[in-house]
Amino acid sequence: MKVCIVGCGAIGSLFAAHLARMDDVEVWAYDLDQQHIDAINKDGLRLSGVSKLVSHPHATSDPDEIPACDFGIVATKTLHTRAAIEVTARVFADGAVCSVQNGAGNEEIIAEYVPRVMRGTTFPAGHIVTPGHVEQDTGGKTWIGPFEPKAATLDEVKRLAEALSCAGMETLAMLDARGAQWTKLIFNAATNPIGALTGLPHGVACDQKRVRRLISGLIAEGVAVADALGIELDSDPEKLVDHARDVAYNHKASMLQDVQAGRRTEIAALNGGIAAFGKANQVPTPLNEAIWALIEGLEHSMTRND
Amino acid sequence: MKVCIVGCGAIGSLFAAHLARMDDVEVWAYDLDQQHIDAINKDGLRLSGVSKLVSHPHATSDPDEIPACDFGIVATKTLHTRAAIEVTARVFADGAVCSVQNGAGNEEIIAEYVPRVMRGTTFPAGHIVTPGHVEQDTGGKTWIGPFEPKAATLDEVKRLAEALSCAGMETLAMLDARGAQWTKLIFNAATNPIGALTGLPHGVACDQKRVRRLISGLIAEGVAVADALGIELDSDPEKLVDHARDVAYNHKASMLQDVQAGRRTEIAALNGGIAAFGKANQVPTPLNEAIWALIEGLEHSMTRND
Repeated sequence: MKVCIVGCGAIGSLFAAHLARMDDVEVWAYDLDQQHIDAINKDGLRLSGVSKLVSHPHATSDPDEIPACDFGIVATKTLHTRAAIEVTARVFADGAVCSVQNGAGNEEIIAEYVPRVMRGTTFPAGHIVTPGHVEQDTGGKTWIGPFEPKAATLDEVKRLAEALSCAGMETLAMLDARGAQWTKLIFNAATNPIGALTGLPHGVACDQKRVRRLISGLIAEGVAVADALGIELDSDPEKLVDHARDVAYNHKASMLQDVQAGRRTEIAALNGGIAAFGKANQVPTPLNEAIWALIEGLEHSMTRND
Repeated sequence: MKVCIVGCGAIGSLFAAHLARMDDVEVWAYDLDQQHIDAINKDGLRLSGVSKLVSHPHATSDPDEIPACDFGIVATKTLHTRAAIEVTARVFADGAVCSVQNGAGNEEIIAEYVPRVMRGTTFPAGHIVTPGHVEQDTGGKTWIGPFEPKAATLDEVKRLAEALSCAGMETLAMLDARGAQWTKLIFNAATNPIGALTGLPHGVACDQKRVRRLISGLIAEGVAVADALGIELDSDPEKLVDHARDVAYNHKASMLQDVQAGRRTEIAALNGGIAAFGKANQVPTPLNEAIWALIEGLEHSMTRND
């Protein structure tokens, strides 16, 4: 089995490093970070933290070097989905490609370029420590399933899930993976930008009565859009918010870290994704649109040179 | 005529300094900033910028020193309305008190303590340079009128307007001053916190398509609340936003300056005021509530010690 990881940042590296341990899987990691690529090819890809291992995927920043693959796993930031799949699509001319990215709308883009697509949702998270070395911060499952408008076969979904699970990343093959995806999406869209806009850690934000009400308003819009799409959520996002308050009170949202570092965020695929699917299905999402506007404005002010 | 200025910060000082020039007006300025008070009593109150004058109001931080007054002008930040009128109410036992503060809801608080109330809206703005010295940054008119639930007489409204106009602050006596007040309120609530949350100057914010749409959404809610209250606006807040874009493109919202300096804002009287009047009149104001929540969260994160 040949697998190409498209976007080998922190998340892509978790997938690449695990899969490359398997004797019967040949892994190609595509990324534009030449230092990371060179380090992987020289000394292998090392994981520390929740997973501890070193393995040896092929790594390249040149799509022409990658052979035809059975599977793709797209793990770029949502900002780069189109650019990344555009240059690697040839590799998947007879393959199935799975997004494990945040937000909504990635599979739609991927499906413009490749014949068969899967949607995926993954909970493991990490960060690059140095080129070739990724710290895995959290564990958790991955859910994958066919992307119906241009679906991978269920057999493909199962084969990829089995390979990942065997490699140490527990992955569930689902007929309909939208419930997992939208549960995470709604949770993220209702909490991540609130942290970025207020500067508050998750638990502190939850304890502010008015802020908590805004979180509920954002969730209600997301749930209404999911309902209109016929998606049955895996769990109640309200309960996830309260659970996260209990277990990660002082967690600083990744989007807050992004804006503080002057990086563009994934807002267009999070609140923007909910708003886009809402619009397409006549479900109003004024609060998600407001948050989208504010984060876009904040990104703009952080990149202005004055 | 005896007038007491309640809250002698930048705005209160503009009123105190102008009125104290008049031979037939005795002005008392009440404030808790002892340095400002002492400087005024020692060397007088000096205005520079748009107005250039020095005059000699009585200044004190002790309400017991203030004699019974015919008029009060409340010019504290909206956060301090209740505390300030509570300790000075005795002075106005047979007087009429006018708010010239931002936002909505101040007159309601003042009316709990004094017999006759006026609402007011003022455009002149300034800042304290050093104790006893205020720079007036902008000119403009002031509109005052009876606060109907506990109204000052029209004769009182006219006498105060005439005194202010004679003293150099053009003031219009209105039967219904709500139109001016709500026009300024809706404009402020739709622009000021957007600057604070995004960091963008007014014109740049207006040029961001999604942000401009959010501004329009906030305005629409404010206009709906004003409609429900039977208030006829002085002008279209949308046009004020566009006008401000043209004449003050690089203006940094005062609320942005507040949060950057770690000061609490007047959000509760702005978007919070619109939301409160909306709630009381069954007009939904979800966007104003969202903005209120975010600014409150931002204030909270700026005053946390971690």
